[in-house]
Amino acid sequence: MHIFTAEMISKICNGFVEGDPKVALREFGTINNAQAHQLTFFSNVKYKDYLYASEAGAILINEDFVLEQTIKPTLIRVKNAYLALSQIMSYYDKLMNPLKNIKENPHFIHDTAILEDNIYVGAFTYIGLESKIHKNTQIYPQVFIGDQVEIGENCIIYAGVKICKGSKIGNYCIINAGTVIGSDGFGFTQDELGNHAKIPQLGKVIIEDYVEIGANVTIDRGTIDNTVIKKGVKIDNLVQIAHNVVLGNHTLIAAQTGISGSTKIGNNCTIGGQVGIGGHLEISDHLTIGAKSGITKSVNAPHTIVAGFPFMPFKEWTKSNVLLKKLPDLNEKINALEKKLAALESKCP
Amino acid sequence: MHIFTAEMISKICNGFVEGDPKVALREFGTINNAQAHQLTFFSNVKYKDYLYASEAGAILINEDFVLEQTIKPTLIRVKNAYLALSQIMSYYDKLMNPLKNIKENPHFIHDTAILEDNIYVGAFTYIGLESKIHKNTQIYPQVFIGDQVEIGENCIIYAGVKICKGSKIGNYCIINAGTVIGSDGFGFTQDELGNHAKIPQLGKVIIEDYVEIGANVTIDRGTIDNTVIKKGVKIDNLVQIAHNVVLGNHTLIAAQTGISGSTKIGNNCTIGGQVGIGGHLEISDHLTIGAKSGITKSVNAPHTIVAGFPFMPFKEWTKSNVLLKKLPDLNEKINALEKKLAALESKCP
Amino acid sequence: MHIFTAEMISKICNGFVEGDPKVALREFGTINNAQAHQLTFFSNVKYKDYLYASEAGAILINEDFVLEQTIKPTLIRVKNAYLALSQIMSYYDKLMNPLKNIKENPHFIHDTAILEDNIYVGAFTYIGLESKIHKNTQIYPQVFIGDQVEIGENCIIYAGVKICKGSKIGNYCIINAGTVIGSDGFGFTQDELGNHAKIPQLGKVIIEDYVEIGANVTIDRGTIDNTVIKKGVKIDNLVQIAHNVVLGNHTLIAAQTGISGSTKIGNNCTIGGQVGIGGHLEISDHLTIGAKSGITKSVNAPHTIVAGFPFMPFKEWTKSNVLLKKLPDLNEKINALEKKLAALESKCP
Repeated sequence: MHIFTAEMISKICNGFVEGDPKVALREFGTINNAQAHQLTFFSNVKYKDYLYASEAGAILINEDFVLEQTIKPTLIRVKNAYLALSQIMSYYDKLMNPLKNIKENPHFIHDTAILEDNIYVGAFTYIGLESKIHKNTQIYPQVFIGDQVEIGENCIIYAGVKICKGSKIGNYCIINAGTVIGSDGFGFTQDELGNHAKIPQLGKVIIEDYVEIGANVTIDRGTIDNTVIKKGVKIDNLVQIAHNVVLGNHTLIAAQTGISGSTKIGNNCTIGGQVGIGGHLEISDHLTIGAKSGITKSVNAPHTIVAGFPFMPFKEWTKSNVLLKKLPDLNEKINALEKKLAALESKCP
Repeated sequence: MHIFTAEMISKICNGFVEGDPKVALREFGTINNAQAHQLTFFSNVKYKDYLYASEAGAILINEDFVLEQTIKPTLIRVKNAYLALSQIMSYYDKLMNPLKNIKENPHFIHDTAILEDNIYVGAFTYIGLESKIHKNTQIYPQVFIGDQVEIGENCIIYAGVKICKGSKIGNYCIINAGTVIGSDGFGFTQDELGNHAKIPQLGKVIIEDYVEIGANVTIDRGTIDNTVIKKGVKIDNLVQIAHNVVLGNHTLIAAQTGISGSTKIGNNCTIGGQVGIGGHLEISDHLTIGAKSGITKSVNAPHTIVAGFPFMPFKEWTKSNVLLKKLPDLNEKINALEKKLAALESKCP
Repeated sequence: MHIFTAEMISKICNGFVEGDPKVALREFGTINNAQAHQLTFFSNVKYKDYLYASEAGAILINEDFVLEQTIKPTLIRVKNAYLALSQIMSYYDKLMNPLKNIKENPHFIHDTAILEDNIYVGAFTYIGLESKIHKNTQIYPQVFIGDQVEIGENCIIYAGVKICKGSKIGNYCIINAGTVIGSDGFGFTQDELGNHAKIPQLGKVIIEDYVEIGANVTIDRGTIDNTVIKKGVKIDNLVQIAHNVVLGNHTLIAAQTGISGSTKIGNNCTIGGQVGIGGHLEISDHLTIGAKSGITKSVNAPHTIVAGFPFMPFKEWTKSNVLLKKLPDLNEKINALEKKLAALESKCP
C-alpha cells in the first residue's frame, strides 16, 4: 500500500497544509468514520458535527471554510474539496492500476486486426476481422470485439463487454462489464401473411470521446443510419438505448432508463433513473427529467425540469402529487358539497 | 462492397423501374439524407418534402403513390415500399454475412454433444453434455450452452449468450448478446426458522420457432413446469420473463418490461416498454398494453388497448391524464365552491 | 432418471404415507397436470378441484387437511406440503447435480490465486491475482473473477458472472448468469471547465452468507466505503444496486428494481418489482414496498406497506387508485356543482 503525507497530497491538488504536513495517509475514508491513517474530505455543511469529531489523519476542506471549533486532523485547504478529492483518488487509482501491456493467453485476435502499442488484452478476449485498437487501451478478459470495430486510445473495456460488428468507440471511453454495444434494434414489419418480418439492422453504433457507460447496458445499432452517443455522455447501469437514437454532448442518464428508437436527446441533459422516453421525439438541450418520468412528446424547454407520467413542469408535478394523495379528501368534499347544495336547493326552489 | 443497379433491385422485390435502370447503388440511406450511391425508401407522406428534394440514387416507393413534382432519383415502384426495403436489406445482409462453417479455437464441446452440418462455433464458446445443435446455426464467441440443451436449425446466437441446462430453442431463432435463458426463478418459502429457503427450480425454458430475443434479456426456467415462449414471439432488450410464464404466439414485448411468475400472455399481444405485469395472471389474445403500465389483474379484452397504473382502457387513461395535470385547478374549484356555498348558506338560512 | 417410492419420499421429509407406499415416482408435476409417474403437492385450497381429479402418482399434502372425497393418488402427509416439496426438490437437485471437482480446459488461474478443495472451474473462467476460492464452490464457464476477490465455500457462480476487483462473497451464495458485481458507480463532479469529471470508485462490494442474486443484475462498488449486501438477501433479475448502498439481512428485492447511491435498506424488507428508491435514504426494517413504487424520502414504518409514486400507505394508495380512474366523474361533478351553484346564486342574490 502506498503512503502519502499531507504535504504530498497538497502538492497534487494545489492546496496548502494547516497542521502537521508529515502525517502519513494510506487510505481514503468518509467524514463520519475516517481513521488516523485515512484522508477524508469535508464539503457538505450538513456533516459539520462529523467534522469537529473527526479522527481522520487529514481532511481536504475548502479554503474559505471558517472553523468554529478547534480540530484534531491536519487540514489540506483547497478551492473545491470534492473536486480535489476526485483528483487525489484519480492519482491513487492510476498508481494502483497501472496500464498493462500484455496479452494474456488464450486470446483470439484475427490476423487482420490491428493493435497499437501498450494495449492489454485479457484472456478469452476475441478481436475480429479488420478491427483496430488504438494505443494504451485496456481490454479485460472475455470481451467480444466483432469484425470491423474500432476502439480509440486510452479506453477501458471491462470484462465480458460485447462490441458488435462495425461499432466505433472514441478515445478515453470506459465501458463497464457485461454491456452490449451494437445489438440488433427491435424492428419488424408485417409480411403478406401478417407475420412479423425482421427488418435487418445494418447501421452502426458510433460512440465519441470521453463517454462512460455502466454495466449491462444495451445500445442497439442503427437500422440504416447510426446510433450516436456524443462526446462526454455518461450512461448508468441497465440503460436501454434503442436504434437510431442520438444522445447529445455531456448528457447524463441514470440507471434503468430506456430511450426508444430514433429519438434525439440534446446536449447537457440530465435524465433520472427508470425514465421512459418514446420514439421519434426531440428533447432540447439542458433539459432535466425526473426519475420514473414518461416522456411521450418532444420537449423544447432548456434549463427546466419536467417530471411525472404524464410529464409536466416539475413544480406542477409536485403540486399534482400532493393532491394525488388527497384524492379521497377531494372526493369527500365533492360529496359534501353535493349534499349541502341539494339541501339549499330544496330550501330555495 | 457489393454494387446493385436499380434494375437488379426491382427484380429482387418484384417491382418495376421508373427512370435510369442502370443507376449504381452501394448503400442504404434514409429519405432525409440519402446520397447518389444510396438506395432509400419513401413510405410516410409526412416526409414528402424530403422526397422531392432527394439526392438519392434510387427510391423504393409504393406503386400507387402519385408524384406531384418531378423528381431526380430513379424510382423503384413496389406494392409496399417498407416491406420491399426490408426484403432488399435481408438480401444484402445475407450476402454480407454468409453462413460460417468453422469452429474457432479454442472452444469447448463436450464429447457427448452433437453438432449437425454447417455450424459456426465461435472461440471460447462452451457446449455441454448431451447438447444438440441443428444445422446452419451460428453460435458466436463466448456463448455458454449448458448440458442437455437443444438448439434448432438456422438460429443465430450472438456473443456471450448463456443458455442454461435443459433449455430447448426452436428453428430460425435469434438471440442477441448477453441474454440469459434458464436462470433460476425467484422462488423461496419460509423454513421453520423463518428464513427464506430456496425452492429449487427444476423446470426448463422452451422457446419455439421464429422467436427473436434482444440483448441482456433474462428468462427464468420453470419451477416444475416449463417457461414457454411460443412461435414468433419478439422480445426487446432488458426484458425479464419470470418462471413458469407462457407467452403466446407472435406477441411483441418492448424493452425493460417485466412479467412476473406463472402469468400467461395470449397470442398477438403488443406490450410496450417498462410495463410490469403481476404474477399468476391471464392476459387475453390481441391485447395492447401501453408503455409503463402496471397490470395487476387478469385482462380479457381482445383488440383493445389498456394503459396506466392502475391500468384502464386507453381512452379513459388519456382523459385521466389530462385531469391529473389539472388537479390543482380542480382543487381550487372545490375550495371556491365551498366558500360560495357557505356564503349562500348564510344568506338562505 | 432416479426413481423414488412414496415411502422413500416420506422419509426424506419426515411424513407418512396414506395409500400405496411402493408407487414409483420419477418426476415432479403440478397439481393441475401431474401424471402417474409424478410427485405433486397440494397446499392452496383454491386448487381443490384439481386435487380430487388428480392422476398424480403421489401428492404431498398437509397433515391436517381433511379429504371431502376419495382420491386416487397416494398421499404423503406432512406438516407443510410446500416446504416438504421444496425439501424433496432440493434433495433431487443435489442428486442430479452433484458437486464437480474439475478444472475444465482452458481456464486462466493466476499463479497467486488460492483454490481450496473440491472446486469446479468451468472452461474459459478467469481467476485473477491473489484471489481466493473456498471449498466446494462451483464456478461455471466464462466467469470473470478479478484481482483480490474472495469467494466463500459452497457457492454457485453461474456462467458469465463478472466479479470485479476486491469484491468479497460469503458462503452458500448463488449468483445467476450474467450478473456484474463491482462495476464502477455512477459518480461525477464538475471540473473547472464545467465537464463531468469521473470520481474514481475505490470501495468494494461485500456480500455476506446465504445471498442469492438473479441474472444480469448490477451491483456497483462503493466510492470510498463499501457497498454491502447482508446475510440472506435475495435479489431477482435485472436489479440495480448503486454505490455505497447497504441492504439489511434477509431483504427480498424483485426484478428490475433500482436502488440509488448511499441508501440504506433495513432488515427483512420486501421490495416489489420495478421499484425505484432514491439516493441517501434510510428505509426501516420490515417495510414492504409495492411494485413500481417510487420512494423519494426515508421511510421509518416497520411492518407496514407503502405503494405508489408518490408513495403512500398501501390503503390510501388503493383508495387513490380507485379515484384516479374516476377523475372524469369527479370533474363532471365539479362542473355540475358550479352550474347549480351559479343558478342558485342568481335566485338568491
